[in-house]
Amino acid sequence: MHTNRNGRIGVDHVAALLLGALLALPAAAQTPPAAAAPGPRNLPAELRASAAADRLAWERLAYLCDRIGPRLAGSPAFQRAVAWGSATMREDGLDAVRLEPVTTELWVRGRERAVMTAPVVHDLPMLGIGESVGTPGVEAPVVVVRSFAELGPKVEGKIVLYDPVIPPEAGGGARYGVYVRFRADGASKAAALGAVAVLVRAAPVHSLATAHTGMLRYDPAQRKIPAAIVAAEYAEWITRLARAGVEARVRLEMEAHSAGNVETANVVGEVRGAARPQEIVLIGAHLDSWDVGQGAHDDGAGVIHVIEALRLIKAMGVAPARTIRGVLFVNEEHGSDGGKAYEAAHKAESHVAAYESDSGGGAPLELAASGTPAQLAWLLAAVKPVGLPLRFGSGGTDIEPIARDGVLAVGLRVDLPNYFDIHHTQADTLDKVDPQALRDGVAATAVLAWQLANAPEP
Amino acid sequence: MHTNRNGRIGVDHVAALLLGALLALPAAAQTPPAAAAPGPRNLPAELRASAAADRLAWERLAYLCDRIGPRLAGSPAFQRAVAWGSATMREDGLDAVRLEPVTTELWVRGRERAVMTAPVVHDLPMLGIGESVGTPGVEAPVVVVRSFAELGPKVEGKIVLYDPVIPPEAGGGARYGVYVRFRADGASKAAALGAVAVLVRAAPVHSLATAHTGMLRYDPAQRKIPAAIVAAEYAEWITRLARAGVEARVRLEMEAHSAGNVETANVVGEVRGAARPQEIVLIGAHLDSWDVGQGAHDDGAGVIHVIEALRLIKAMGVAPARTIRGVLFVNEEHGSDGGKAYEAAHKAESHVAAYESDSGGGAPLELAASGTPAQLAWLLAAVKPVGLPLRFGSGGTDIEPIARDGVLAVGLRVDLPNYFDIHHTQADTLDKVDPQALRDGVAATAVLAWQLANAPEP
Repeated sequence: MHTNRNGRIGVDHVAALLLGALLALPAAAQTPPAAAAPGPRNLPAELRASAAADRLAWERLAYLCDRIGPRLAGSPAFQRAVAWGSATMREDGLDAVRLEPVTTELWVRGRERAVMTAPVVHDLPMLGIGESVGTPGVEAPVVVVRSFAELGPKVEGKIVLYDPVIPPEAGGGARYGVYVRFRADGASKAAALGAVAVLVRAAPVHSLATAHTGMLRYDPAQRKIPAAIVAAEYAEWITRLARAGVEARVRLEMEAHSAGNVETANVVGEVRGAARPQEIVLIGAHLDSWDVGQGAHDDGAGVIHVIEALRLIKAMGVAPARTIRGVLFVNEEHGSDGGKAYEAAHKAESHVAAYESDSGGGAPLELAASGTPAQLAWLLAAVKPVGLPLRFGSGGTDIEPIARDGVLAVGLRVDLPNYFDIHHTQADTLDKVDPQALRDGVAATAVLAWQLANAPEP
Repeated sequence: MHTNRNGRIGVDHVAALLLGALLALPAAAQTPPAAAAPGPRNLPAELRASAAADRLAWERLAYLCDRIGPRLAGSPAFQRAVAWGSATMREDGLDAVRLEPVTTELWVRGRERAVMTAPVVHDLPMLGIGESVGTPGVEAPVVVVRSFAELGPKVEGKIVLYDPVIPPEAGGGARYGVYVRFRADGASKAAALGAVAVLVRAAPVHSLATAHTGMLRYDPAQRKIPAAIVAAEYAEWITRLARAGVEARVRLEMEAHSAGNVETANVVGEVRGAARPQEIVLIGAHLDSWDVGQGAHDDGAGVIHVIEALRLIKAMGVAPARTIRGVLFVNEEHGSDGGKAYEAAHKAESHVAAYESDSGGGAPLELAASGTPAQLAWLLAAVKPVGLPLRFGSGGTDIEPIARDGVLAVGLRVDLPNYFDIHHTQADTLDKVDPQALRDGVAATAVLAWQLANAPEP
């Protein structure tokens, strides 16, 4: 999961909040799974039962994590993931399995290192920020700022450390919301005042000297300077020194660079609709991850939700009314190339809804949706058998381009309170995923897709 | 804190356990602070009050952590810590402040890296084990073993990964107890069968891709092979691959080497006894730390307990009956050079007790002690005003040599449930120390020292 530059997750606008209050029914108040199945079979219940017995969900996630590993968009590992995704869909007997071309930029981290050189010589646990330029070595005194407002002429020739004030009681999402602004825009804002590099404090609830990565956006009007995240403990160290009147010096070495454009693909497979095959219910996740950890929660779990939901639906032997189209997107993490390419190629088609699972592999908690009041009312009726509360919010980064065309967007939100401790870190690994929660996510995705594909006309 | 090679912490022998049951009185059952003070002043209560108001405790720990930093024995930072320790004791007006020469070996980590090269290319979060030899680069398939018993001819030419079975419900100390055997002896046991390097799984309760360090012991009869700790997530990854029949390959590069012997010193300062100055109550901590993190809990907090206890006692303006001698030891972490040198230099003196604080800066929980039944009975009576339960256990690594000469040994144990998550890691940093708990540790140390120095004859 990537979040937008102002750090808000999910809630789109004030009107959404107002309507959201009407729609956010507790799960218990909703009708239990029933009625939606055509004929004597209760197909949502069958999907739940097959998801509950789904061993392949875990095996496939283990394969993706352990055998393919982290899969930065455009990297050799990503290309292996693309081949695995399409082979898996073919193995499952899906319809119209294909690769849809996407061009993406390959960013390469290379070796990297940040060393405090004064007053103490010490390696700083760090990760370069995705898309950052590299440096053979830049060393300078560090100026600590708490906000963009504290930037000024004093940063000229210096390394800026963004160490924002975060309320101690703030949860993971709120902390991430504070930090992500500096990660995204900190480099260019400091460069505009002559800084030579930037460091950004990681802001998880729990840190064990944990560095995170993510993407930045260079302002084309400014010089590109290197940028890295430092673990909270080490940002605090430098900040304490600054408060004590002691200037820390840091040397930053990063081999980070762009390796240029790479031709790759969104992986697409379908369960073809019988009654209205031209109407599309898109279910998606992003196949890429950051290049650290294993991308187990972000977004390996979402990939499994999608491919397993498709497999279980196909295996029922009953075609849905509409076509359910699974898409494994390219480069959600730093460019949304797959989401944009999908929109460009498919905007003329009739999408009744687009769903994305990109909040990790925790137990399903709620659905976030954005659309017109009529779309949302339709959704509310259709997804009752999913058994999850509904609230307003972003469906997901990959489906934002098509959502902007007016398509109803739905995102799965899960119960994963420590998500922002491991998000974009070396610790986003398979051991952090609970197999039962993963199966529950498959069930939610499958039932949701089935319901959307069979609900009455919007 | 370093623990002994079989991983037991604190409990010395079966007889101790039996007697321990008699001595482990709950704090509430002990008499409150009173009576022990000579004259109308209640000196233990005064010490508690001054400790409760002690701002210098935190300021000095911050100085040690932030301005001196991690201080591996014999390193330039350690030598600065020695100078700081003796200057601080002089500033506080202690008696007979001096440096007592100790020779220690300086181990240097240098740069290091472990990379999984197959089936996925990925950096493994790791730390070389202290005292390990380096390697310009060794690459080999990995053989996973769960125990020493699983070693065999199959490890010849391979890298051994020790991934011991640990009960999921095991706490930090128990997990550490399992892991430390492999950290200490794993290299030589694998080398005996032809292995080329070893990796040991870190075993904290919580891991965020966290590597730990510590020391190993080479068997002189075996070839020295390099050894490193890998974060739990990455050990599990390799183990899952092995179970799936997939051989992982790892390349290990370590610049680790010995930089030879260094002349350094235990830092000693006293509050001279008035009545029986030749009788010594030793209170100590170790001034060295590992070279990662800041050594805040291990053993910066203990150093502060000792120097602040001495300062507060001295500041009362009342001499104790016996001499209270503070010692900041050299190289507890990988050689106990300071503890051995102290014993060699002072064994002829009359020590009534030796106390060490080396379990971190958490709130005081209990005292562990080892000695004869008569010594322990004396201790029990003397330390009632400390208000902590007493149980059998090791006093501490630095005072073990003198304890073996028959001196009563006492160790402070603190409430720090996450200690083994940060122990010997980059995350043992100042932010993990609670200022109030630190002051409480100063109070416990000061009252204990005062009581031992003024109790009736053993």
